[in-house]
Amino acid sequence: VSAANRLKVIRAAGRSPREIVDLVRSVKAHDGPIFVAQASEEHYKSILDVIPTAVRDERSGMIVVRPFNRPRAHNSDRRLAVLAAGTSDLPVAEEAAFAAEAMGHPVLRIYDVGVAGIHRLLAARSDVDAASCVIAVAGMEGALPSVVAGLVSKPVIAVPTSIGYGASLGGAAALLAMMEATSRGFAVVGIDDGVAAAVLANRILSVD
Amino acid sequence: VSAANRLKVIRAAGRSPREIVDLVRSVKAHDGPIFVAQASEEHYKSILDVIPTAVRDERSGMIVVRPFNRPRAHNSDRRLAVLAAGTSDLPVAEEAAFAAEAMGHPVLRIYDVGVAGIHRLLAARSDVDAASCVIAVAGMEGALPSVVAGLVSKPVIAVPTSIGYGASLGGAAALLAMMEATSRGFAVVGIDDGVAAAVLANRILSVD
Amino acid sequence: VSAANRLKVIRAAGRSPREIVDLVRSVKAHDGPIFVAQASEEHYKSILDVIPTAVRDERSGMIVVRPFNRPRAHNSDRRLAVLAAGTSDLPVAEEAAFAAEAMGHPVLRIYDVGVAGIHRLLAARSDVDAASCVIAVAGMEGALPSVVAGLVSKPVIAVPTSIGYGASLGGAAALLAMMEATSRGFAVVGIDDGVAAAVLANRILSVD
Amino acid sequence: VSAANRLKVIRAAGRSPREIVDLVRSVKAHDGPIFVAQASEEHYKSILDVIPTAVRDERSGMIVVRPFNRPRAHNSDRRLAVLAAGTSDLPVAEEAAFAAEAMGHPVLRIYDVGVAGIHRLLAARSDVDAASCVIAVAGMEGALPSVVAGLVSKPVIAVPTSIGYGASLGGAAALLAMMEATSRGFAVVGIDDGVAAAVLANRILSVD
Amino acid sequence: VSAANRLKVIRAAGRSPREIVDLVRSVKAHDGPIFVAQASEEHYKSILDVIPTAVRDERSGMIVVRPFNRPRAHNSDRRLAVLAAGTSDLPVAEEAAFAAEAMGHPVLRIYDVGVAGIHRLLAARSDVDAASCVIAVAGMEGALPSVVAGLVSKPVIAVPTSIGYGASLGGAAALLAMMEATSRGFAVVGIDDGVAAAVLANRILSVD
Amino acid sequence: VSAANRLKVIRAAGRSPREIVDLVRSVKAHDGPIFVAQASEEHYKSILDVIPTAVRDERSGMIVVRPFNRPRAHNSDRRLAVLAAGTSDLPVAEEAAFAAEAMGHPVLRIYDVGVAGIHRLLAARSDVDAASCVIAVAGMEGALPSVVAGLVSKPVIAVPTSIGYGASLGGAAALLAMMEATSRGFAVVGIDDGVAAAVLANRILSVD
Amino acid sequence: VSAANRLKVIRAAGRSPREIVDLVRSVKAHDGPIFVAQASEEHYKSILDVIPTAVRDERSGMIVVRPFNRPRAHNSDRRLAVLAAGTSDLPVAEEAAFAAEAMGHPVLRIYDVGVAGIHRLLAARSDVDAASCVIAVAGMEGALPSVVAGLVSKPVIAVPTSIGYGASLGGAAALLAMMEATSRGFAVVGIDDGVAAAVLANRILSVD
Amino acid sequence: VSAANRLKVIRAAGRSPREIVDLVRSVKAHDGPIFVAQASEEHYKSILDVIPTAVRDERSGMIVVRPFNRPRAHNSDRRLAVLAAGTSDLPVAEEAAFAAEAMGHPVLRIYDVGVAGIHRLLAARSDVDAASCVIAVAGMEGALPSVVAGLVSKPVIAVPTSIGYGASLGGAAALLAMMEATSRGFAVVGIDDGVAAAVLANRILSVD
Repeated sequence: VSAANRLKVIRAAGRSPREIVDLVRSVKAHDGPIFVAQASEEHYKSILDVIPTAVRDERSGMIVVRPFNRPRAHNSDRRLAVLAAGTSDLPVAEEAAFAAEAMGHPVLRIYDVGVAGIHRLLAARSDVDAASCVIAVAGMEGALPSVVAGLVSKPVIAVPTSIGYGASLGGAAALLAMMEATSRGFAVVGIDDGVAAAVLANRILSVD
Repeated sequence: VSAANRLKVIRAAGRSPREIVDLVRSVKAHDGPIFVAQASEEHYKSILDVIPTAVRDERSGMIVVRPFNRPRAHNSDRRLAVLAAGTSDLPVAEEAAFAAEAMGHPVLRIYDVGVAGIHRLLAARSDVDAASCVIAVAGMEGALPSVVAGLVSKPVIAVPTSIGYGASLGGAAALLAMMEATSRGFAVVGIDDGVAAAVLANRILSVD
Repeated sequence: VSAANRLKVIRAAGRSPREIVDLVRSVKAHDGPIFVAQASEEHYKSILDVIPTAVRDERSGMIVVRPFNRPRAHNSDRRLAVLAAGTSDLPVAEEAAFAAEAMGHPVLRIYDVGVAGIHRLLAARSDVDAASCVIAVAGMEGALPSVVAGLVSKPVIAVPTSIGYGASLGGAAALLAMMEATSRGFAVVGIDDGVAAAVLANRILSVD
Repeated sequence: VSAANRLKVIRAAGRSPREIVDLVRSVKAHDGPIFVAQASEEHYKSILDVIPTAVRDERSGMIVVRPFNRPRAHNSDRRLAVLAAGTSDLPVAEEAAFAAEAMGHPVLRIYDVGVAGIHRLLAARSDVDAASCVIAVAGMEGALPSVVAGLVSKPVIAVPTSIGYGASLGGAAALLAMMEATSRGFAVVGIDDGVAAAVLANRILSVD
Repeated sequence: VSAANRLKVIRAAGRSPREIVDLVRSVKAHDGPIFVAQASEEHYKSILDVIPTAVRDERSGMIVVRPFNRPRAHNSDRRLAVLAAGTSDLPVAEEAAFAAEAMGHPVLRIYDVGVAGIHRLLAARSDVDAASCVIAVAGMEGALPSVVAGLVSKPVIAVPTSIGYGASLGGAAALLAMMEATSRGFAVVGIDDGVAAAVLANRILSVD
Repeated sequence: VSAANRLKVIRAAGRSPREIVDLVRSVKAHDGPIFVAQASEEHYKSILDVIPTAVRDERSGMIVVRPFNRPRAHNSDRRLAVLAAGTSDLPVAEEAAFAAEAMGHPVLRIYDVGVAGIHRLLAARSDVDAASCVIAVAGMEGALPSVVAGLVSKPVIAVPTSIGYGASLGGAAALLAMMEATSRGFAVVGIDDGVAAAVLANRILSVD
Repeated sequence: VSAANRLKVIRAAGRSPREIVDLVRSVKAHDGPIFVAQASEEHYKSILDVIPTAVRDERSGMIVVRPFNRPRAHNSDRRLAVLAAGTSDLPVAEEAAFAAEAMGHPVLRIYDVGVAGIHRLLAARSDVDAASCVIAVAGMEGALPSVVAGLVSKPVIAVPTSIGYGASLGGAAALLAMMEATSRGFAVVGIDDGVAAAVLANRILSVD
Repeated sequence: VSAANRLKVIRAAGRSPREIVDLVRSVKAHDGPIFVAQASEEHYKSILDVIPTAVRDERSGMIVVRPFNRPRAHNSDRRLAVLAAGTSDLPVAEEAAFAAEAMGHPVLRIYDVGVAGIHRLLAARSDVDAASCVIAVAGMEGALPSVVAGLVSKPVIAVPTSIGYGASLGGAAALLAMMEATSRGFAVVGIDDGVAAAVLANRILSVD
């Protein structure tokens, strides 16, 4: 079983620093990598007390508690493109990008390419095309994956985000709407789940 | 009160020809226009027996039972553009287009411009721009209104359609997702409700 | 592309003052107008530090960070009527009214005209009729747009609000119920989204 | 226990004539009244074979299999008003009216008084006011109970109907929206459940 | 129009004391009664500053800001029974009872009669029977209205409560389930809306 | 692994007789029992062609294609009580009862004990008490399991049924509401899933 | 009626310490056991002031305010197995285990056996098999009950948990999905409701 | 743009043969491949009249109207594994498998490996491991993707199916539940959408 299978992902959001430290300790016996997602500064400080080598990405709040054990990924000439539709989607996009880099993949960030300003996306097309796998992070703009999958022929992973205000059902609504169009060549991971997209991208980029 | 206010819209879907005829008769006393939407050939035949001048549009199944009473609309130099994303959206788009024409407005149909093939939409941009009001009909492609409202500065009316398979919640999901992005310059009418879009377009095109 | 297309709307609710300032700065390069909606006093203070000319409307919490660049709107003899059903709908109605004024349109506010006290709405009818476009803000009173669209022949934009207590599904429920009646001549924007209504009203009032 | 408590209501919709006859027979031992709602001609024929005195109302499809045992109701000077918003609400309104009459109450039918044509409702106000209890049947027009409860001071019973097309969630959406406004003086019974409204009206009209 | 029609109900929950005072002031011009529901001690203090005669019920948090103007209700020999299923339903039941008393009706409180301990309800049956109208407040025990309506022949008003933990959809779920059984002789008001039940009870108890 | 684990349950509803026969054949290689639930006469005839010993219960439509291989169950002095609230719940109750008998358990049927006629349930109490396990089948009357679990101290298995008309969400609503009260001593199986209740009852009745 | 029927369960979550003490006092007159679930340290301190013998389990936050009155349960050679899928499910699993122990049953805890690491569950199989009843606590891993019911032939009680992030509908979604598979031999209690599972397990373990 | 991008997928379900032929004709001008999914024999006959070379797969009902233009896929030494949980999932699994073969990929079918019989899945593990990409089709058994992603390190594409009876919300519920666990290394396509899985698998298998 590869490191990717043994990766342990812990969500910090909604938990106290002490709970997170306890959770981190409880997985110590396994020797796989550990990521803590959506962590605050306080979470980070508590983890540093027990794992001084832990590294936190400020934009996404993700902490690599125990890293992947490889200087560069298998097939590391394959690049991952991470696209974000709007400003509010950035933390989720950064979570995906930072996690993928922590797994050893070069990442190209292409942000602010929501479908309401379609020309910015078109301008970035050749860059997207040069990647081996694409992650498309989009909230309100649930159509970004559709448009991207129509522009390039690489595997596309869609990450719906929960921004958007109004109906509290919104998160699920966007996701369900997105599911209708997957036959264009993309699949969807959990709402706001940047790490999940990175885990799948890692598997795709490692295909022999 | 104008004819638009007195317009009576009857949905034929799910009703027998006899029920429709009874409904048509029951509104006879009012002197406004009457439209019957989503009507089959059988519905039409039954209506012709009592209103021989009724006209049916085959693509949308809409019947103009009693027409609007004007050769050309007020402000008839204003044109309406009706956009449809996919093949399955055509009946709803035709319902909107035919209803608007029956109210006296010139209509430009621009079909097969879903966001998955973004270049076809971009190619049609100047035509869309030349219209005074835009109706964007889209199912799976819930993003069409967002993209269109980003391309032009005219009022955009979005019509979500119920195509798409999978979760029976789909219709509502697409609609709720669409509502998150209305600040880009569009508003939404009921699912599959092409006539509703035409009724609002008529009001917009009649603004002094 | 017009200023309306380049307008950037940022929701302050749920974000720290610092995040808002960062977002405002991140759009600096574009030269379009910037609105920040649902902003608190604290949000405003932070923005004033970087944009001393920003103006905040106290009733709605909306901030015009960078204004529309016109002393008076095109077609500025056209007036917008903003109707609110109940007291709780006022902040959303004010957001719509203030945003429309910031775009250069004269606005007539007609409040406390919910359908439970139908005579107040009837008393205001001629004022509503004199406007070129109507925004109807209503929570519990989801029927206000229906009633208004039956009274006048102008375009009506409905803004559902999330007030109402009870089922947390309430917001979505009101919206879905409202969608059933759009063929009476109105369309709907996102829940609590006063700015969205103003953006569409601006497009309608600018129709040539 | 009164006859109202012993009343047995059976829904014919979705059941075969034979099943209905079996159900009718299975309640024979109880000596209370029996109503069969939403029955077709076929249902009626089968019931007539075993209960030749059964009476069917054609507009609503309701059958009084075994009647209430009183020539005139207690407090029969109290009148019930049954209001319906649109044409499609008539079968449900008739079910309520016919059931109430079968319980011995004089009923005043006031139809086509939906909120989109508010003047028709206002014209009927004194008739509504003269009743001791009001049933308001409304689909799309979920606001009818609100408006009526604002106009009169009698108990109002709201019956949401499932008409309306679009989101299949529609029925529940209308009901949930309606629940937000009950503090205006009305309560709600099940969707399309005219009999339920009549049963409650019977209890109200019988209050000493 | 009676006082009941002019009654203004304001929900304090989720609003600051200052907002509540502003709302109370804004309705000053009308001369009807004013109730503020779900108010905290802080809300009450702020209101006392402007309306020193306001009275607050501690159990429900309801404030009578301006009372009904009658020493005893019309038909005041009619009594209202307020039933509550569980301990958690008490605040809502008290809101209903206190509001009804403020309208001049004698109220009999019958608490802790949930269906899981059916004998307590049966023991109270003759008391329930002696009332002219029954309010049944029940959360988890959505069946209380069904059981009560089977035991007595008076009008029953059901108030679903939002207690219960688990699925956040719970409130709506309980309500929708309850709606299925209304043909037994009850109708339903909004979730947790004790005042709504009192308003309707007032109308029923006032029937001539 | 016991026969209960190897039991194969096939739902006939929504499948053609031929599909069912193919499914039955496809499990032939396994030597466990086979039940076909919700089967019509046509389904039965097709199965008889290949399995002449198959037995069908007319009330529930369940077919025992290959029986459990025991003359009497382990612990067969333990009896199962199957309760049904209303007439419409009978097919589901019969499915549970017939399936349990096919597994070798004596079953006591106690029907028409819905909570709206609480005295019939109380009259049956000692019979319920004498059973070792109770299945409570209830649609509209979602409270039956609560009441039963309050009356006896045996394990109670609740089967929600999909009867009830109105909101198509009804099935899920009843189920979610029921889940709120499980701490009274019952658990819930799938909607209309009588066999599931029997499978669990079989496990409970077999406890050493 | 046994102690299990008289058990009173109070949820502390969302209530102040004082409210909990009041609730505890209000049930004093009954002489059955009292559990307070999901209690904080503060809740515990307040209860200790009035019930010095109350005992709190730190992992689940459950307090036994008044214990079951038996040194060892009837049939105490029957053991209960409590399984938990993930780390986040532990508090709910502990609530179930602690409550069952407080009712006198020996409990075997088998944690971290989620389906994503299927070998850990298989390794524990003989331990699960040796129990007379199994509680399976699982959030994201809604399939744990299915897998367990396929491995052993004992009654299985499923407890869905609300962990998981993303769609706020998630809790209900997991539950509804789980309900589809109950014919494999398990039934489901309320979301996060460890006590409910223990109450039912107590009834099963006490079957004669 | 590759053939995969130009692939046109048409759903036959719910459309008449004539409509399908019209749709097929309407895309003639494009020179990409055309698939018609969920087609009946009648659909097929109508298509054969205009495209005599069309090929239909009987198990899934999928028709390749115009094939991919390559004898063997790029990287055709990569194999795709298609897993199905239950018998009812087969048509969807076959749709995925047949579509992938039509794109030139060798496919290994591994069926009847639902999580309730976990040993069958474990027995197939080495075969799954030998594939470069895995499609996991599962209805009730929503956990199959989780388990598979825990066993192997290849990209996993989950296809939820709509089987399962009970709550009509079921399809969406299963999907939403599945989304919670994607961080284990899989992503999800639309309900019952086997073609969508194949389209994404084609992109993954073509990664350089």
